[in-house]
Amino acid sequence: MSKKYAIGVDFGTLSGRAVLVDVSNGEEIATSTLEYKHAVMDEFLPDGVTKLPPDWALEHPKDYLEVLGYTIPNVLKDSGVSNEDVIGIGIDFTACTLLPVYKDGTPLCFDEKFINNKHAYIKLWKHHAAQKHANKLNEIAKNMGEKWIDNYGGKISSEWAFPKIWQTLEEAPEVYDAADFFIEAADWVIWQLCGKQTRNSCTAGYKAMYNKACGYPSKEFFKALDPRLENVVEEKLNCPITPLGAKAGEITEEAAKLTGLKVGTAVAVANVDAHVTVPALGIDAPNKMLAIMGTSTCHMLMGTEEKVVPGMCGVVADGILPGYFGFEAGQSCVGDHFAWFVDNYVPYEYKQEADKRGISVMKLMVEKAQALKVGESGILALDWWNGNRSVLVDVDLSGIFVGMSLLTKPEEMFRALIEATAFGTRKIIETFRKNGVAVDEFYAAGGISQKDPFTMQIYADVIGMDIKISASKQAPALGSAIFGAACAGKAAGGYDSVAEAAKVMGKVSDVVYHPIKENVEIYDKLYKEYDILHDYFGRGENDVMKRLRAIRAQAKSI
Amino acid sequence: MSKKYAIGVDFGTLSGRAVLVDVSNGEEIATSTLEYKHAVMDEFLPDGVTKLPPDWALEHPKDYLEVLGYTIPNVLKDSGVSNEDVIGIGIDFTACTLLPVYKDGTPLCFDEKFINNKHAYIKLWKHHAAQKHANKLNEIAKNMGEKWIDNYGGKISSEWAFPKIWQTLEEAPEVYDAADFFIEAADWVIWQLCGKQTRNSCTAGYKAMYNKACGYPSKEFFKALDPRLENVVEEKLNCPITPLGAKAGEITEEAAKLTGLKVGTAVAVANVDAHVTVPALGIDAPNKMLAIMGTSTCHMLMGTEEKVVPGMCGVVADGILPGYFGFEAGQSCVGDHFAWFVDNYVPYEYKQEADKRGISVMKLMVEKAQALKVGESGILALDWWNGNRSVLVDVDLSGIFVGMSLLTKPEEMFRALIEATAFGTRKIIETFRKNGVAVDEFYAAGGISQKDPFTMQIYADVIGMDIKISASKQAPALGSAIFGAACAGKAAGGYDSVAEAAKVMGKVSDVVYHPIKENVEIYDKLYKEYDILHDYFGRGENDVMKRLRAIRAQAKSI
Repeated sequence: MSKKYAIGVDFGTLSGRAVLVDVSNGEEIATSTLEYKHAVMDEFLPDGVTKLPPDWALEHPKDYLEVLGYTIPNVLKDSGVSNEDVIGIGIDFTACTLLPVYKDGTPLCFDEKFINNKHAYIKLWKHHAAQKHANKLNEIAKNMGEKWIDNYGGKISSEWAFPKIWQTLEEAPEVYDAADFFIEAADWVIWQLCGKQTRNSCTAGYKAMYNKACGYPSKEFFKALDPRLENVVEEKLNCPITPLGAKAGEITEEAAKLTGLKVGTAVAVANVDAHVTVPALGIDAPNKMLAIMGTSTCHMLMGTEEKVVPGMCGVVADGILPGYFGFEAGQSCVGDHFAWFVDNYVPYEYKQEADKRGISVMKLMVEKAQALKVGESGILALDWWNGNRSVLVDVDLSGIFVGMSLLTKPEEMFRALIEATAFGTRKIIETFRKNGVAVDEFYAAGGISQKDPFTMQIYADVIGMDIKISASKQAPALGSAIFGAACAGKAAGGYDSVAEAAKVMGKVSDVVYHPIKENVEIYDKLYKEYDILHDYFGRGENDVMKRLRAIRAQAKSI
Repeated sequence: MSKKYAIGVDFGTLSGRAVLVDVSNGEEIATSTLEYKHAVMDEFLPDGVTKLPPDWALEHPKDYLEVLGYTIPNVLKDSGVSNEDVIGIGIDFTACTLLPVYKDGTPLCFDEKFINNKHAYIKLWKHHAAQKHANKLNEIAKNMGEKWIDNYGGKISSEWAFPKIWQTLEEAPEVYDAADFFIEAADWVIWQLCGKQTRNSCTAGYKAMYNKACGYPSKEFFKALDPRLENVVEEKLNCPITPLGAKAGEITEEAAKLTGLKVGTAVAVANVDAHVTVPALGIDAPNKMLAIMGTSTCHMLMGTEEKVVPGMCGVVADGILPGYFGFEAGQSCVGDHFAWFVDNYVPYEYKQEADKRGISVMKLMVEKAQALKVGESGILALDWWNGNRSVLVDVDLSGIFVGMSLLTKPEEMFRALIEATAFGTRKIIETFRKNGVAVDEFYAAGGISQKDPFTMQIYADVIGMDIKISASKQAPALGSAIFGAACAGKAAGGYDSVAEAAKVMGKVSDVVYHPIKENVEIYDKLYKEYDILHDYFGRGENDVMKRLRAIRAQAKSI
């Protein structure tokens, strides 16, 4: 039998990337990327005249079709692999990224009638204009004593499905009424590939309040939001939920024309970028945490029981790999902290030094911070420049630096920020452990894990665990290919489960960050201090951050 | 009778400045400045080979004589005023600045025998190498239940007289034994002018633990420090204490030759730069606080009763003006905060903008900070980058910033630092009030009061009081001239008291900073938050700053 291949397509915020992978060993044979023509629409609709209000962020579904039609033919061509040997395809998306469609899957924004209606387009994950709806939803859920909300740390986000749907109903009832479905862009792309609607257990669970055992929240709850929402599930989401790892269908003739794939090629159920990364590192079992570290960080962890861990983003059956409960946690600001500091608080002299040496200011700062001994700066920070996503789940928290003297240098404050994000990760790990979910191993993927050994060593020292990192620089796309290979099945030259495929195709780098004993000891002391301040400022003992925010809002409004 | 004049000489850390003043109206007729040839010696003795350890800071008495011999003839010459019409002279000094001398006033460092002995020179106020002795002294005073220490906020500083004397005894007993006196440089200069030793009530009270009613601490106390110190007062400080405002003596023939003044000209008892500034603003009565604002801030306040105000630098009878109890408080870091930020945390782009516009980065930052509304930044700081001098009296405290987001700009943090120092001043005012010392008016002198209207307006808004500022840019020298005019007496064309002289010769500017009601309201809220954090971090609820300092010290020692 000839070699077999699978394709993974990773849809990001600004571009889509396909990778063609050898299913026998996970080798990445060819890659192709295409930027979205419309990028993120946050000022105008494509008509160039319809203005978007603040906090809006839309995308255009045509861009996703173009990614399929450009990148897949490209990887086939570049690799010289015949479509006969491609056994399966998987995709992943940034989520919750939601659009209204007609019964046949046609997006409302393709319809002349709605082309100038902003609610007809895709609400990107970072569309933040439904905060009001999220707040009201949380309040009502709390008042009604809804149990399901415990699975989301007690709060759902404005980025998720129902606030976005509710916003559409309130602001554009004509769009709401005309839509036969609201669907995740991920599931919509799968529909385009295999000609039938599916809904994956991952976005349904993490973003749409769906629970495998209990279903969606009750009609009473939705009615309490708005009587018109009473039957929203039957009327707008009516489609069974399919577990991750399953086959959604097969490439249709139309999709074959678009992509160059063979009619009948297996198509996996859609997935989310963070979650799909887990098998890309070969993680096939519970209690191994994966952190995807970039501007922000996502933490993925599987467990064998559904535990309520306070302040986590969600726990979902089949949410990461089929057969396990998938826990998600996150830090809303990680690399963003470092960029904030380097962009705004590095003096002229440092910039000159970096220019002279032909290196970036970021690189210079890392060098200077690296030259410091652990604990030498005397500075401690809390990593809340963009609020706290997990454990406290509070967007109104803000940043803090303690310990400055007149001798404090920028690199000391910079290093304190890096350490603060590591303490934040440790806090998440300890919260899982305290609530009965073991964290026995730690893995990392994402930009920071690939480019920043200094930060990774600090993380190893702070959490006191080995850190294994992704061997692939495009781990989500590789993960999607693994799902493609798994859904094709062994008979076709693939695998019978994602876990099996992950074992063979998933890869970690030879580089492992081991904790350094002397550093661990000092970080243990510093973490104790972090922990005290975390609770003091974060759990209501001193709500100064919220009061400062209120004073600030008032000052700005005058 | 022809017009009469007085001269004031202000001895600073790096230079001395004389001013010749019209006693009838306080007009400053002529000024002359001379930098000290030896400046501050903190690396080598004048021999160029004897190395000084860290934290040492010495001066050379010859430099002070040169100031007298250069600046006084200069102001006489420049003004065209005859020495016949100069009725008195006063001086002020940075203190505690201490030297060992022989019986006739000759400094030991003038003696060949001691020319290479570092302990024979003047220990400048900022000589910090006697911290060990200060710590031990405080510990022993606490154990022995010494009452006098309450007058110094419960702690004396390593900058003061006895730690410096004790250090000399321990490290150079030959110097200690050879010295007939340890004397403030201020009193030593007066000795050179009028040929006899006096000791002023201000330095004796604030820097040498002397109390008008009780004298110096007991022999038992000094013996407990070191048996050789049992009789230190009789053996090394044996000279009565003269109240401020009194006449120390008259210009001798030798001093007349040096200065060009007439033999017999009245010489006032020496004074301290901060304290002498009070009458320069015309302050002649209790409950009017004067802040001398520069890199750090001194607060001067007179009261009619000796009250123990916790955490103040000192309360001394006749310590500011004769007849009142003088209270001193301070903030160890004010302008230093602003310079720290501007020197280290202002980005490249701002420097370019400032250069392009031909203004300093500091000026640009003030402009940007000024454009913000009160409370708009959402940032709060504690002004402890160099510890806390008054109220908490704790050098181990450090700085804190709270409230940052990813949108926080450098000018917002800069402004928070300025506001923090204003909150610190308000805390001092409120602590006086709470302990029975009224603060009814507020005055300011020093560089910030003259050059920085933005900061002054913030102070007025934060303390909710009018702020009057010194009309003179050389207020200490003017103050010294006022003391010169007062000690000359009315008969000679001067005044019978400092208060009388201050009324006529002291001046405040026409510029008064009035609190702006809307700002006061917001700052009241922010001050409440400052106050909570002040107590949380400063009064033992969370000693994180001290623990960070300990971790830092340990890290540095490895």
